[in-house]
Amino acid sequence: MRALVTGGAGFIGSTLVDALVARDAEILVVDDLSAGKRENLPAGVDLVELDIRDTAGMAKLAAEFRPDAVHHLAAQIDVRTSMADPVHDASVNVLGTLSVLGAARDAGARAVVVCSTGGAIYGDGAPLPTTEDEPAEPESPYGMSKLAAERYTRFFVRAHGLPALVLRFANVYGPRQHPAGGAGVVSLFCDRARSGGRPTVFGDGGQTRDFLYVGDVARAALASADRLADGRLAGEVFNVGTGTESTIVELAATIGRIAGLDAGAFTPEHQPARQGELRRSCLDPSRGLAALDLPAPTTLADGLAETWAWHNTRL
Amino acid sequence: MRALVTGGAGFIGSTLVDALVARDAEILVVDDLSAGKRENLPAGVDLVELDIRDTAGMAKLAAEFRPDAVHHLAAQIDVRTSMADPVHDASVNVLGTLSVLGAARDAGARAVVVCSTGGAIYGDGAPLPTTEDEPAEPESPYGMSKLAAERYTRFFVRAHGLPALVLRFANVYGPRQHPAGGAGVVSLFCDRARSGGRPTVFGDGGQTRDFLYVGDVARAALASADRLADGRLAGEVFNVGTGTESTIVELAATIGRIAGLDAGAFTPEHQPARQGELRRSCLDPSRGLAALDLPAPTTLADGLAETWAWHNTRL
Repeated sequence: MRALVTGGAGFIGSTLVDALVARDAEILVVDDLSAGKRENLPAGVDLVELDIRDTAGMAKLAAEFRPDAVHHLAAQIDVRTSMADPVHDASVNVLGTLSVLGAARDAGARAVVVCSTGGAIYGDGAPLPTTEDEPAEPESPYGMSKLAAERYTRFFVRAHGLPALVLRFANVYGPRQHPAGGAGVVSLFCDRARSGGRPTVFGDGGQTRDFLYVGDVARAALASADRLADGRLAGEVFNVGTGTESTIVELAATIGRIAGLDAGAFTPEHQPARQGELRRSCLDPSRGLAALDLPAPTTLADGLAETWAWHNTRL
Repeated sequence: MRALVTGGAGFIGSTLVDALVARDAEILVVDDLSAGKRENLPAGVDLVELDIRDTAGMAKLAAEFRPDAVHHLAAQIDVRTSMADPVHDASVNVLGTLSVLGAARDAGARAVVVCSTGGAIYGDGAPLPTTEDEPAEPESPYGMSKLAAERYTRFFVRAHGLPALVLRFANVYGPRQHPAGGAGVVSLFCDRARSGGRPTVFGDGGQTRDFLYVGDVARAALASADRLADGRLAGEVFNVGTGTESTIVELAATIGRIAGLDAGAFTPEHQPARQGELRRSCLDPSRGLAALDLPAPTTLADGLAETWAWHNTRL
């Protein structure tokens, strides 16, 4: 099995690469290293440093490598960056995705997994846990660019028969999510716990998220590619989440506990609420779990234990 | 009143420019002349040849001209082009619109009218005539890029207080729509009537469209800008159409009649139906007509008479 992974040197992408290595896949990683890091990749995995918006470069690479599966994870992922520079966000997430879709089609890929977001695509008023049937009402440019990328993906399925599907991730956390990136509250809180600081909480901390362990993401992506290659599930959109809502304050307490800190020592430092932040977010993963025949998601306690261990041993 | 018109050298844009000239507006046209023509513009109107995707160029231009109103009409408008090259389509329609929105905001524009499509944004199954409340379910990359541009427009309204609204046009026809462009069945049929040929009809000709006279578009755009400048209607989306459905076969017959041809001399030549073409399309313009205080749309007979006169005297 030949797998091309865009954004493969990133936190999520490199976890998927590990899972592909465990399956003895032949792997080609495409990453511009704007956020990803070469050291995230195991030795022996080929990395091509390329911006996915380079359509000619992407097409050439895919034509030469002839992937069975394309996992498209490269993206601009920061909501606030998208608000400050929506042109850049749309350029990477919309044009970049079109570039990858075109290259995958021309190279005859049998499975194309396009990674999207559940958190930023549904509106703030969607029922929780949110199913894929809820209308997409993104409020940020990031959500808009990801939604556009989803629509283009389904267009390629309809118009070109591309065997592609979309996965909408909840809030992914886990080993290799680096606190220096500023993304990932789990990573930031682990970092504070390790350094003896206190967790910074914006607003009252009662806002909720659906924290998804990165290993579950890799599993969902592999299962998706398998089924697409079997001629199934093209054009589908699946949430990948846990269905469990956790408040930011609960998250901080759990991390403090796992880190062995006294409850009083790891209390939140509150900052003003951030403009435009969703109050509650939680995805219903039922449809995808059934269609992809996946086990129950990793519990937050288990996932945080793995993440804490990584912070303690690797950082 | 200072008005900046993107795509102002095109068929619709130059009609709007004429209406602005009649109001003694100070006008700046931005057009890359990929489809527009300098000769569409009246003497004395300034034209800057610029690609709207040049964000720095757009920002500089807008900062210097300091428009009160920005009418954004520049776009990739062909559905089939969007299917063949969705990257180009998204680049012009998504990134280009973001560039114009950013420039308008930074220049302090008091009214920004963003032109979109009704025909390609609603799905084939939408009730007819279609209101703005129907969900947007674009099926072509062109419809997707225009929908994304609409979402970004509303984001600029929410996040930056930009006084902008969206107009979704029906099938616009009228003087200056050139048959050589391949777009515009009215223009193509007039051309055939004039040259003694017969109208080419794809499929059975029973497919319907809502044919909107270009003068009505200009009127809607001016009324929109007036109200936005008065602090009203920001964030709104209005259909601009007639609410009247006409079949292609009916259109051909009407044009034949106006051209004074015998019924038997101007019968359709049928070609195979075109893949992905909408069967029926008709917009309900009620909401916009009321909010913008507009007169009833031009009838097809009146609009075609004007159009035929132009074909006969100018081409």
